[in-house]
Amino acid sequence: MSGPLHLYDLAGADEACRFSPNCWRTRLALAHKGLAVETIPWRFTDKEAIAFSGQGKVPVVRDRETTVFDSWAIAEYLEKTYPERPSLFGGESGHALCRFVNQWVSEILHPLIARLVLPDLFLILHEKDRAYFRKTREAAFGTTIEALADERERNLALFRRTVQPLRSTLAAQAYVAGTAPAYADHIAFGALQWARVTSPLALLAADDPIAAWFGRMLDAYGGLGRGMPAATGGQIVP
Amino acid sequence: MSGPLHLYDLAGADEACRFSPNCWRTRLALAHKGLAVETIPWRFTDKEAIAFSGQGKVPVVRDRETTVFDSWAIAEYLEKTYPERPSLFGGESGHALCRFVNQWVSEILHPLIARLVLPDLFLILHEKDRAYFRKTREAAFGTTIEALADERERNLALFRRTVQPLRSTLAAQAYVAGTAPAYADHIAFGALQWARVTSPLALLAADDPIAAWFGRMLDAYGGLGRGMPAATGGQIVP
Repeated sequence: MSGPLHLYDLAGADEACRFSPNCWRTRLALAHKGLAVETIPWRFTDKEAIAFSGQGKVPVVRDRETTVFDSWAIAEYLEKTYPERPSLFGGESGHALCRFVNQWVSEILHPLIARLVLPDLFLILHEKDRAYFRKTREAAFGTTIEALADERERNLALFRRTVQPLRSTLAAQAYVAGTAPAYADHIAFGALQWARVTSPLALLAADDPIAAWFGRMLDAYGGLGRGMPAATGGQIVP
Repeated sequence: MSGPLHLYDLAGADEACRFSPNCWRTRLALAHKGLAVETIPWRFTDKEAIAFSGQGKVPVVRDRETTVFDSWAIAEYLEKTYPERPSLFGGESGHALCRFVNQWVSEILHPLIARLVLPDLFLILHEKDRAYFRKTREAAFGTTIEALADERERNLALFRRTVQPLRSTLAAQAYVAGTAPAYADHIAFGALQWARVTSPLALLAADDPIAAWFGRMLDAYGGLGRGMPAATGGQIVP
């Protein structure tokens, strides 16, 4: 080992506010592997700061001479490079099946959560990011950020129906990955942590099995997730 | 070994027509384990025939003195009872993560597919099952079987969006479980085989990565799936 890894980590106007779901995956994956990390606050418009990675999004990890971007690629890199440390996937089958969880969270849950939290999230962004964020997100969602607030009740009901497979899985076992958290849990955690840090909206009912699991995940890895303050009034879990 | 296992398997008016998604999971799981099986055709209203299992749904498996029902419980039974044969889950992590696939297919995909195929499926049922089927399904879906046909275009578009995580997973790897099929593939296969056997509707575009995977699954285990004729005109895959 030669010093910590470095993670470019999305930040709000408050540099201490870290809310990217994909960066949270990486934070927990690094903690799972027991790897020290120094995070570097990054804003959406800081494209030059990560130009060395050949693309413009975070998470980006630097591990000595190696640069890796994309949360899934980073998880695979960590598993391959540090095989003697606790496994993120639990073997070949776990690796393959975890990809489905990755795709489901990224392609189904993230867009739903975005529609719910964007009006609140917009308010915590650094001023220099706001025009960029509004332009890209309004194009992606085909509506204004403000108009999303009017859809909230309907989108919340849709979110709660959509997470049913996660709910029934967590009613049957303590973690997505089984008896202990692993990368599948980091993926799902990132989605809910994004909501917790950016919006006071309660995405889940207090008696939802997902809320109980999320509480355990906030406490995991020495309380890494809980150390990031929730948005004011946020009460996904007690 | 003392003779084949027995599987109570949902059949249509034509006794040879086997279309239950959950029974197909079990068929492939038995083939994966290399276990011989004798299937016993069963209709929805044959409750007495499986009363010995303590409940009224198939699949029900009898393995010598042991009776197991519920497709997930059957898969776990087979894995535990025949550990020396090819694994359905690929270890503890695979087992836990496979549960999420199980819940997603059962709770999200099955209801969507039901809405698409029920008008066609109703026509292949044994006459003695029709009143029972209409009553239970119309209560579950809150509409008539015939009215579901009018929603088909909208439901097909919703289905194709909803399977996106399966699509992107199968664009990246040959099988849900990785480089070879296992129980996660059996689960997803059962859903599409149900549609293939009951309805001529093409659920997937021909160039969909899921269609290519489904073709491989039809050919797997000696062509077990392909041996069941598709509904007339069915063309999910070429």
